[in-house]
Amino acid sequence: MPPVITLLTDFGLDDWYVAAMQAVLLQAAPAARLLDVTHLIPPGDLTAATISLERALAMGLPPTTVHLAVVDPGVGSNRRVLIARINDQSIICPDNGLITWAVRRTVKPAKFYELTWRPPQSSTTFHGRDILAPAAAMLATGVAISQIAQEISDPVLLPLHLAANLTEAQVIYIDRFGNAITNVPASMISTDRILLNGANIGPLRKTYSDVAVNGNVALIGSSGLLEISIRDGSAGDQLHIAVGDPVLFVP
Amino acid sequence: MPPVITLLTDFGLDDWYVAAMQAVLLQAAPAARLLDVTHLIPPGDLTAATISLERALAMGLPPTTVHLAVVDPGVGSNRRVLIARINDQSIICPDNGLITWAVRRTVKPAKFYELTWRPPQSSTTFHGRDILAPAAAMLATGVAISQIAQEISDPVLLPLHLAANLTEAQVIYIDRFGNAITNVPASMISTDRILLNGANIGPLRKTYSDVAVNGNVALIGSSGLLEISIRDGSAGDQLHIAVGDPVLFVP
Amino acid sequence: MPPVITLLTDFGLDDWYVAAMQAVLLQAAPAARLLDVTHLIPPGDLTAATISLERALAMGLPPTTVHLAVVDPGVGSNRRVLIARINDQSIICPDNGLITWAVRRTVKPAKFYELTWRPPQSSTTFHGRDILAPAAAMLATGVAISQIAQEISDPVLLPLHLAANLTEAQVIYIDRFGNAITNVPASMISTDRILLNGANIGPLRKTYSDVAVNGNVALIGSSGLLEISIRDGSAGDQLHIAVGDPVLFVP
Repeated sequence: MPPVITLLTDFGLDDWYVAAMQAVLLQAAPAARLLDVTHLIPPGDLTAATISLERALAMGLPPTTVHLAVVDPGVGSNRRVLIARINDQSIICPDNGLITWAVRRTVKPAKFYELTWRPPQSSTTFHGRDILAPAAAMLATGVAISQIAQEISDPVLLPLHLAANLTEAQVIYIDRFGNAITNVPASMISTDRILLNGANIGPLRKTYSDVAVNGNVALIGSSGLLEISIRDGSAGDQLHIAVGDPVLFVP
Repeated sequence: MPPVITLLTDFGLDDWYVAAMQAVLLQAAPAARLLDVTHLIPPGDLTAATISLERALAMGLPPTTVHLAVVDPGVGSNRRVLIARINDQSIICPDNGLITWAVRRTVKPAKFYELTWRPPQSSTTFHGRDILAPAAAMLATGVAISQIAQEISDPVLLPLHLAANLTEAQVIYIDRFGNAITNVPASMISTDRILLNGANIGPLRKTYSDVAVNGNVALIGSSGLLEISIRDGSAGDQLHIAVGDPVLFVP
Repeated sequence: MPPVITLLTDFGLDDWYVAAMQAVLLQAAPAARLLDVTHLIPPGDLTAATISLERALAMGLPPTTVHLAVVDPGVGSNRRVLIARINDQSIICPDNGLITWAVRRTVKPAKFYELTWRPPQSSTTFHGRDILAPAAAMLATGVAISQIAQEISDPVLLPLHLAANLTEAQVIYIDRFGNAITNVPASMISTDRILLNGANIGPLRKTYSDVAVNGNVALIGSSGLLEISIRDGSAGDQLHIAVGDPVLFVP
C-alpha cells in the first residue's frame, strides 16, 4: 500500500489554498495517496482541529502515514514547526497545541521533534505550502525524522483533557448532525441519568433507535466518548449546546 | 482501468467522518479510485440522496463500479443493508429507499440482496465506516455478491415516481444554481406553456440563451428531465420553489 | 510523474455535477491525477474564477498539466471553447474571460486556440461534462492541441488589470480568512501609509505577527500581491471590504 498523507486545515474550500498545498505533495511525493480529513475547521479553532487530528490518527492507517495539519494563526512568527510520532504514525503541524488531543488519548509513548529543515525561500504567510507540505512529502517518501528535525520534550499543549472524573465532564465538539461529543470516556459511564443544559438526556443507550424520534439520547459514539444526540434531530441546535457546556450526572 | 468506488453521504465536510470511511477503503481496496458524488446531502434527506445516487449510476462508469451511499437515519436499528445490481453497476446502501430513483429510471432488470456479512465488531452509530465501507471494498476487489449477501425481492422504496402523465408533474430537486429538476421525462413534453408557482415559464426551449437574461426558461436538463431555470439567476430563489411544487402545463 | 488535471468550477459541492465531470476524466485519462482547485466559485463570478485559475497556473505543476475551468453562464450559446497555453501549461475553458488574470500575470508569451473538436452528441446545458472534460482528457493523454483546435488571436478578456500605478489600486479578491487581495504587485509598494475604507492599515509589514492581535496589517501575500488583513480577524468583515474597493497610499 502506498503511503498516505492526510490533510487537515482551516483553509476552507472556497479558495485555492488547499490545492496549492496538494500540488506540492503531488510533485514531491507522487506515490502518496492524499486523504482530506477536513478543511473546514473554523479559522484558527485549535480545539476543533486537535480533536479532528486525533480522529485521523485513529483511522487505523499504517506507520508510513503522515498527518499534515495546518491551523496556524501564528504563521510567519517564530513559533516552531513540530513533528510528532504518536500511535505509530507521523504528524507535522505548527507547535501551537494541535497535537494535544492525540497526546491525551494515545496509550503509547509519543515522541516530539522540532523541524529544523527550511526551504531556500518561503513566503511569510503560507508556511503550509512552503515549509510543512515539502517536509510532509519528505517524511512520506522515507526521509528519516532525524534528518530534518531534532528531538524536543516540551511541545505546546492546550488546556483540554479527558475528564478525570464526572465533575469535569463537558462538551468538546459538536458535529454536523448536532451530536455533542464530550470528554467522557466510555469506561467512566454508569447508567446514571444525564443532564445537559437543563435537559434530561436519560441513561446511557446503545443507539439512536433506543429512543423515539426527536428523543434525547446519550450513547458512546464512534470516537469512544459519550455523545449527546437527538434522534433524527440536532441536539446542538435544539438544546442550544456550545463547546464547553458542562454535562451533569445524577445518580 | 481500476475499479471506482463512488461515495455519497450526508456526513458533511466539516467533520472527519468522510475521511474515516475513505481510510477504510484506501486500505481494503488500495487499487480502487475514489470518486465523491457529494457529502452535502441534507442530514437524512432520502429524496435528495436517491436522486443524486441515480445520477452517479448514469455517469457511464464500468461494471466494476461500486456506489457506496450512506444516508442512514436508522443506523444501529435492525434495518437491512442492501446491495443492488442496477444498470450493470453495484450499489451498497442502507435499505431505506436510497435505491428508489435508480430503480425508477433503469430500463434493465435490477437485482437486490441483503448484506449478511458483518465485521467481528462494529460501532452502533457509524455503520458506514464499520460495515458498509468494508463490504464496498470487498465488492470492488472482486468478492462475489453471493459470498456476502443473499438475494431479496422487497427492497424499501420511497413514494417517488416519474410522472406517468402531466398531472403528476412536480419539482423533485433544486440544485446549486436554483435549477428546479422535475419528474417529467423529455419524451412527455410537448411545446405547451408551462407554469410553476404562478409564473409563466413559457414553452420548452433548447438552452438558457434562448431567453433574455433573467428570463424564465424550461428545458431538458442534463438528467434527461424537464428543468425550470432563470437565465443567469436562480429559479429556486426567485420563484420560491420547493421540492414537491406542482408543475402545470397549459395547452 | 503522471499528468495532472486541475478542476475549477462554480458547480458547488451539493450536487453531482463535479463528480459527473470527474467520471469522464477518470475513464478517458485514467493515468491522470485530479486536483480540485475549488468548486465554490460563486455562480457565474468570472472575476473570482480568473484569479483562482491564475493561482492554479502558479502552483509549479509540470508542462503536461491541464487546467480545466468551467464557469460558463453562456453554456449552450455559440460562445467559443478556448484552449490556451500559458506559463508552459494548458488551460481549457469557455472563451468568456476566464483566462484574463493568467494573461495579465504571465511573463511568457501566451498562445490561444479555439476548440474545434465536438463529441457525437452533447447536452445543451452541461458542456463541462460533454465537451470540455473529454477534450481536457485528450490533452492530458498527449493529443496535440493542433489536432483538436485552431489558433486564434482574440480571446475574450475581462477589464481586470494589475495596477499600472498606485491610483489604480483596488481589492480584487477576498479569501476565507477575510484577507483582501489587491491588484498591486510587490514591486510597486514603498513604505507608505495605506488606507482602505477609511481605515489606517499602516505601512507594509512582513507578516501578521508584526502587529498586535486585531491590528490592521498590510503585507505581500502568497500571491505576490499586496494584501490587507486583520491579525486573527477578518479584514473583509470588520472593515466591510468589497471587491472593487479602492486602496489609497499616503506618502
